[in-house]
Amino acid sequence: MPEIRKDGVVDRWVVFSPERLRRPLQYNLHPLDDADGQPDPFVEGRESYTPPEVLAIRNPGSAPNGPGWKVRVVPNLFPALRVEGELHKEAVGLYDKMSGVGAHEVVIETPLAEVELEQQPLENIVNVLKAYRARLADLTRDTRFHYLFAFKNVGALAGASMRHAHSQIIALPVIPPNLREKLNAAKKYYAQKDRNLFEDILKAELKSGERLVFQNAGYGAFCPFASRFMFEVAIMPRQQRASFTACTDHELVLLADILQKVLMAYRTGLERPSYNLILHTAPVRWRSIEEWDTVEHDFRWHIEIFPRLSGVAGFEFGTGFYINAMFPEDAAKFLREVKTDA
Amino acid sequence: MPEIRKDGVVDRWVVFSPERLRRPLQYNLHPLDDADGQPDPFVEGRESYTPPEVLAIRNPGSAPNGPGWKVRVVPNLFPALRVEGELHKEAVGLYDKMSGVGAHEVVIETPLAEVELEQQPLENIVNVLKAYRARLADLTRDTRFHYLFAFKNVGALAGASMRHAHSQIIALPVIPPNLREKLNAAKKYYAQKDRNLFEDILKAELKSGERLVFQNAGYGAFCPFASRFMFEVAIMPRQQRASFTACTDHELVLLADILQKVLMAYRTGLERPSYNLILHTAPVRWRSIEEWDTVEHDFRWHIEIFPRLSGVAGFEFGTGFYINAMFPEDAAKFLREVKTDA
Repeated sequence: MPEIRKDGVVDRWVVFSPERLRRPLQYNLHPLDDADGQPDPFVEGRESYTPPEVLAIRNPGSAPNGPGWKVRVVPNLFPALRVEGELHKEAVGLYDKMSGVGAHEVVIETPLAEVELEQQPLENIVNVLKAYRARLADLTRDTRFHYLFAFKNVGALAGASMRHAHSQIIALPVIPPNLREKLNAAKKYYAQKDRNLFEDILKAELKSGERLVFQNAGYGAFCPFASRFMFEVAIMPRQQRASFTACTDHELVLLADILQKVLMAYRTGLERPSYNLILHTAPVRWRSIEEWDTVEHDFRWHIEIFPRLSGVAGFEFGTGFYINAMFPEDAAKFLREVKTDA
Repeated sequence: MPEIRKDGVVDRWVVFSPERLRRPLQYNLHPLDDADGQPDPFVEGRESYTPPEVLAIRNPGSAPNGPGWKVRVVPNLFPALRVEGELHKEAVGLYDKMSGVGAHEVVIETPLAEVELEQQPLENIVNVLKAYRARLADLTRDTRFHYLFAFKNVGALAGASMRHAHSQIIALPVIPPNLREKLNAAKKYYAQKDRNLFEDILKAELKSGERLVFQNAGYGAFCPFASRFMFEVAIMPRQQRASFTACTDHELVLLADILQKVLMAYRTGLERPSYNLILHTAPVRWRSIEEWDTVEHDFRWHIEIFPRLSGVAGFEFGTGFYINAMFPEDAAKFLREVKTDA
């Protein structure tokens, strides 16, 4: 059973999951094929290589856990957290721990090997986003979970162990500090100004345009003013929604469009960099009603994407600050001007 | 001129220093030699390759910026922050920025190529620690700086760009959030219990011993209860000192001893892993007297060291939490039992 431990000094929980030592480290710099001796377990026809699917978007008439799917969601075979069991919390001397209860699922984004998310037809990128929405909504019903989110690691430098295009969904029994800090800032801003912080940031970026990368009817994509990484991009919805699960189908089509544009600019302009993508959305449960309060008005879901072109080193770990060698104004200009076929 | 920008949502400053794009990325997996076409600028006899030294521990009679040194400290040729200029702070719409004032120095730990810190005689490790102490003390006098610290990146996976054994010293015009969180926790604990948090943690680890790696008359080295990384080690002094600069020569000898033991266990047991080392010490200036208050009693300097055997990925960036595949009890046992020549 995994165990979650809290640092004795700072608000930082660590998930201990020894099972993950058994993960195949399948990633290499060349496209994977069976010649590596490590068959890709995520291609169509190998459904038995994974645990049974919890969701699939399938061709009419195809049977579960067989071929004929477009997007497939399965439990992670090497989960960081376990769905089974009660949530126990206890003190260990000066420290705290709780049982490693949570969910850890894999969204397989395509039945094909060697095809990345952004290379697919727009319709299938929409399917991937619909799978996020459906799984986040379903996991919300489990009352042990307080926070759910989706993320995507691409490439060895971004921590990916598998090459086949996929994302991950995690459910946690606590609200993590990175999100709590955003929630607190949004709440404070709303209390002071009666305006949504994310709305104001999006409006400012659309108006100035100097850090804007792309926009469409639903979203703005921009390099944040204090980008941690070169070519970091935030995708912010124009429509106020605290939770990603509230998005309409139409909003997901527009999101797929702008996401594809950003990822194609990375692919072409930065030559297929490793990158991380994180979908931040409102928590689903809170410790108190005061925390909930105005969240529907003050917080807004959004996506962060950043290529991993430089390391995270002693400076960053020592301070929580970052060193970035490129101003976001220059990064945005570069990404805007990349010529892609998308 | 570098610029420091604050995120519009969270308390995270980013240092923009375009000069760092010009850095040589000299690191490779094999020992560097001149055959690479990139001469090692840190070996004895190449003192003119670096800016003039700000400190050196030298053989009697040797001249500054020439051969005959044991440890040498020089300004970083590609500094993240600039020593020159006033500290200006201003708002940029919703955002904040300040001028990139600070210091960024390199501690060259040996005149020899291909010798790592832990492979040197104990006396020279003591010299490196004395150089940290002297530079931190000297930079403290600059009233623009609020926080100073030392760190060490070893290996490409830990963000090092140079192979020659070295550490770095940074001075910042603000107290970073990672340290502020530690200071706040220490202050709160002291206010509640009238005891030092770090003292209590060290005592608990020495008593239980299950996470203890090494100890000597001055220090305990243990794998923290909520280690972020496999084989993470904290080195905690027995003597209460908020600031590293208050350490006596004798304390530095004992620190060199335990540090060498930990690094030799990494070297032998983990086969020369990439790692980061961070020296956390009390800030030198504060925004208010209340923040200062009891720091001499409640905070204690300490060192964190962690090998970079796994990546920092979407989960960690999305939450601020970590996933660790190994319990610290197992990691400590492994490190204790490594057979080294040290």
